[in-house]
Order: sequence, then C-alpha cells, then structure tokens
Amino acid sequence: MKRPPKASSITVSDVARQAKVSKATAARVLGGYGRVSKTVRAAVLEAAKALDYRPNELARSMTTGRSGSIGVVVGDIENPFFSLAVRGISDAARLSGINVILANSGEQVEAEKSAIRVLMAKQVDGLIVTPAQSGEIAHLVEVAQSGCPLALLDRALPDLDVDTVTVDDRDAALRATRILTRAGHTRIGYVTAAELSGDFCGNESRINTSSVRERILGFLDACREAGIEGAERNIHFGAGRSDRSPAVTHALLDHPERPTAILASDSVVALEVFKAIRECGLRIPQDISLITFHDADWTSVTTPPITVVDQPVYALGKCVAELLVRRLKGDDRPPERIVMPTRIIERMSVGQSPDRQTVP
Amino acid sequence: MKRPPKASSITVSDVARQAKVSKATAARVLGGYGRVSKTVRAAVLEAAKALDYRPNELARSMTTGRSGSIGVVVGDIENPFFSLAVRGISDAARLSGINVILANSGEQVEAEKSAIRVLMAKQVDGLIVTPAQSGEIAHLVEVAQSGCPLALLDRALPDLDVDTVTVDDRDAALRATRILTRAGHTRIGYVTAAELSGDFCGNESRINTSSVRERILGFLDACREAGIEGAERNIHFGAGRSDRSPAVTHALLDHPERPTAILASDSVVALEVFKAIRECGLRIPQDISLITFHDADWTSVTTPPITVVDQPVYALGKCVAELLVRRLKGDDRPPERIVMPTRIIERMSVGQSPDRQTVP
Repeated sequence: MKRPPKASSITVSDVARQAKVSKATAARVLGGYGRVSKTVRAAVLEAAKALDYRPNELARSMTTGRSGSIGVVVGDIENPFFSLAVRGISDAARLSGINVILANSGEQVEAEKSAIRVLMAKQVDGLIVTPAQSGEIAHLVEVAQSGCPLALLDRALPDLDVDTVTVDDRDAALRATRILTRAGHTRIGYVTAAELSGDFCGNESRINTSSVRERILGFLDACREAGIEGAERNIHFGAGRSDRSPAVTHALLDHPERPTAILASDSVVALEVFKAIRECGLRIPQDISLITFHDADWTSVTTPPITVVDQPVYALGKCVAELLVRRLKGDDRPPERIVMPTRIIERMSVGQSPDRQTVP
Repeated sequence: MKRPPKASSITVSDVARQAKVSKATAARVLGGYGRVSKTVRAAVLEAAKALDYRPNELARSMTTGRSGSIGVVVGDIENPFFSLAVRGISDAARLSGINVILANSGEQVEAEKSAIRVLMAKQVDGLIVTPAQSGEIAHLVEVAQSGCPLALLDRALPDLDVDTVTVDDRDAALRATRILTRAGHTRIGYVTAAELSGDFCGNESRINTSSVRERILGFLDACREAGIEGAERNIHFGAGRSDRSPAVTHALLDHPERPTAILASDSVVALEVFKAIRECGLRIPQDISLITFHDADWTSVTTPPITVVDQPVYALGKCVAELLVRRLKGDDRPPERIVMPTRIIERMSVGQSPDRQTVP
C-alpha cells in the first residue's frame, strides 16, 4: 500500500487535486466557510482524510504537543467592553493550551488591515476580528479564503459567512428606548461613537458597523411605536473618545430643544455624556434621563447609578473563542451565527419626562 | 576592495568573530544591555560597522520598506492603566511604521513566559514587558541576551540593565500618604492587588514587583515620619479583581480597629474599596478617606470625586516605545532608566480623621 506524503506537507492544493475541485472550493470546505454542495463537500473531506490533511499548524501542533496561537483584532482595547471580551477569549483559549495575541484597530479599517496582515505573517492559527466596517471587507474575505479559520466578535457581516457571535442589538435598543418612551419622553437622543461622513438622513445603509446599525434601528423602532416623529434627527455620531466628542455632547445639551432622555451606545460615550450633563448643571434623572449599553464598572457607583443594557461580554468572548478552537481542531460544520441575549439592569437614572410633568 | 557578505546574512556571531570577542559580549554591545568595557564596546561597534551588521529584522525591513512589529506583554489589559499605556505605545510605534502586538500575563509569571515565548517565536523585532515578578526573570535575561531589544514598562528590575521607564512610585506614595497623616489619620490602610504568599511582616524583599514594593516603602516612610507605629500590619494584599477581593476589603472595613483612611494601589482596587465602603454604610470622607493611584475615568464622577495620584500613563507608554524604536534603529547608547514624575489631584475624598474630631 502506497503511503501518502507526510501529513505536515499536505496543502489545500493537494486536497483539491485529489478531490478534483478548484483550490477555492477545497479551501471553502476545509476552512468551513461559504456554500458548497453536499456532494462536493463529501468529496473534499474524503480526499482530506485519505491524504491525512491537517487544516493548519495548530492541528499539527496538537499532535506534536506544541501550543498554537490565535490573533484577536478588537476595535478599541481601551473600551472596557473589548478588554472584558478579550478575557473571555483568553480564558477559553488557555483551556485548549492556545495563546492569544492581540491587536487594536482603533476602529480604523486601515489599521485593521495592517494588524491582520501582521498576524497572518506571524502565522497565527486562527483569527477573531470585530470588523471596523462592513463596507470594506475584502481583507477579511481573503483571510477566510486562505483557509485560516476566522470568527467575528460582536459584529456580523452579511456577506461573510463565518462563525459569528453577536448580541441582540436591535432588540436591546428597542427595549431600552421603550423604558424612556413609557416614562413619557418624546425628545430622546441616541449618541454613538461611530463616525459618519455626511448626514445620516435616516439612511441606515450608510452605517457601516452592524452593531451600530442594529441599535439605531431598534431605537427608531421604539420611537415609531411611540408615535415620535423625526427621531432620525436625534441620532448623534462621533461621541466617545474622539477630539470632537465634547463638542457633540455639549451641542446636544445646549440646544433649545435639548433631549429629555439619552440612550448611549457604549459606556465610554455614556461617561462623556454624564460629565457633560453635570457641567451643564442638569440633574439626572429630574432634568434628563440616561441609559447606556454596557454595565461598566463606573455605572453602579455614580449618583444616581445608571440604568444599563447588560451584555454578556465575557460569555461573548468565551463563545467566539470556543467556536474558533473547534475549527482549529478540524470541525467542518457550517458556520454558526450565535446571537446572545442581553438584559436591562434598571437603576436610578430614568425619571418621568419633565415635559409630561409640566403639562398634566 | 573585498565586499563584505550581504548585510542581511550578518549575524551576531560574525561580528563577534571579527571583533575577537565572545558571542555573548557582542550580543551585549549590539543589544545595548549589560556592562562591557569601553574598549570592547568600540571594537564590537567597529566590527559591526565594517560588516554592515543590522541588529535585527526591523532595521533591515526599514531599508526595504517593510514594516516591523513589536510585542508588548502587560500585567492586566483590563486595568485602564495598562490599556492607556498601550495606546501611548501604539501611537509612538505607528509614527515609525511599526505594528504592536499585545499579550496579557494576568500578572502570572508562567503566562508571561508563555507569551514571551510565543512573541519571540513570531519574530517580533523588540519587546516591551511589565514584569510580573522581579524574582523570576531568567526568561527576560534570555531575551536580552538573544540580542532582541527589550524595554521594561512601569516596573524596574535591578538585575536587568535595559531601557526602563517607571514613575516615582515611592515618592508618590509618600506624598499621598502625607495628605492623610496631615489630616490627622493614624490608622491608614494600604490596599494592593499584589498577591503575597504568607505574611508580609514588614519584609519588603518578599514583594516581587518593583512598583508595588516602592509604593509600600513610600507609604511606610510617611507613616514613620508621622510617628505611626506598626504600619506594616495595615498593608493588605490580594484585592482588585481576584475572587477573594471582597473578603479582603470587607475584613478590613468590618474590623473593630478599621482604618479611617485608605490608600489604594490602583483604580481597580479603589473601585472595589469604594463599593465596599458604600455597602458597609460608611461615608466618604466623613467616616473614611480614600486616595488611589491612577486618575481613572470613574474617579471624577463619583460622589464625592476621589483624590488621585495622576501618573503620566500615556507618556509612560509613548516614552518606552520611543526608547525601543531607537534601539531597533541601531542606537547603542547605554540603557536608560527614566523615572517620570506624578502629581496628586486633590478632589473631595479626604477629610479630617474622625479620631481627631472626637478627641479635641
């Protein structure tokens, strides 16, 4: 019986040749992404088995006992959301003896591309990414096509069918906004760190990050449900850690028609808003109500403590890492899209609308 | 004239042979660490110049236009101190076209070793580390001896002479504690996340992290200066994000001789202490005063806002990255040990000691 060549030297091309399919098709099957027919999938997997193909360095290293590494590219490592998610990833990876190396995109797609290029050149065994933009993903498609297992954290990409773990962003924003509309608020501002070039004009397809878009849609759903018109005009971009953030929040609060309630897209934005509300001499919740995404440390120690959308951040990281590790071990099931539920923790930062109080 | 071999193939061994010194000596000179005589240094540098030795991949990539990468190993990426320092590092690196890849030790020396092993295997061009332990540094010595430029962030190692950037920890703790002693406090607790196996007993050599040790020494200096006896017994280890942190802080506050003032070693510890003080129904600053290291976001939005030791965290990261980049470009000056000054931001969390108030 003829022995197949050494397993470590078997490539995707070898498998493709043996299965009589294109390299791209073989890569899709072996990388566990994209759609192929059942027959083709079976042929490729049979060829891989016959040649003892090991999908990557890690699978190989697992037999030799050497440990592998995965690369993680997050949007902003200073945002406690991401650093907590990274702990979830690291804990799950450690259980499989896998090291995590991290890079930060600062929500810039060019930096994301550069980070991915570096991590791929360093031959990580798999990648977890929170894509900065859903409009520019050629570099991510390339990773997936190379056969390097890729998973997405917190942000889905409709056009890239890989393992993805997100939260129920749209529903969470809907529920949070409902708390405000039910307290009689009709002037509700939505404040996000996301940048938008030009005006929003209610055109959601201009928003390039899925989690940002989903939350805005949920916010608009709740406003519409409560009969609030023109809520699109109350969406404010560019808050957070950017230089123009103070200008954004102050413009919002100094406006004669200032909102009586604000929903903040993350805890970094919310802290900016909280400080600006104080600086304007306004009181929470008497003058203005506040809810934020992410149960950050500080939200429970302010006076008043802040109502939050509590996302299962640690579990989100743990889950995406477990999916990736499964791929590294050769799992070839179709990609999973997991949506985790959030819950709202009601604290003391929401009051009745002052409009409703003065107009009985 | 005989041309030297291609620059890219020149190794430390080639330089050593040409300079007629040992490989270790040549590595010390070329890596810019350790002590060698002026004559030997000159000989090695002359040999390196004659051979057109380029100290590493990056220097080479700089001529070819490819970008390099540095590895950064921090103690706890969830601590805002480290994530802000990493931003300083990343900004400085980006200016030189260098990518940063990160790993987290979780303050565990075994995880630190593993992270360094991975980053070295990935052939980073240089390393920045916040050593988890000053007692176990063989792996760091090895990095330095390999000729890979290494710099230390936030924590100095007396036995490893490489570029190091720290803050004036001892003096900062002295000044912060003095604010408390001058307000009449005599029962002052110092709370740190550092772990200590067994009892401290005032034996500072048992503390394995330089910044932790220096701060404790500064705290003890100020207590001694104020005539406070047995201050060693008021140092509490293991707070912060550990599982036993609530037990540590509550044991401290439930004690009949509980402190009237607390100095926290970082903002993660301080937040735990702040929450515990609230849970015990104590008031800041009437019942208990609080000062913490690190001007974290939340410290200015609590009621009352917290007095902090403001460390130049961003500058610390920027500075250590600049030193490392200089080495990557071939700088061979002796290692620098830079100590950056801190300042205290006085807010509303320090009051007169209740002991002093009741005993006129």
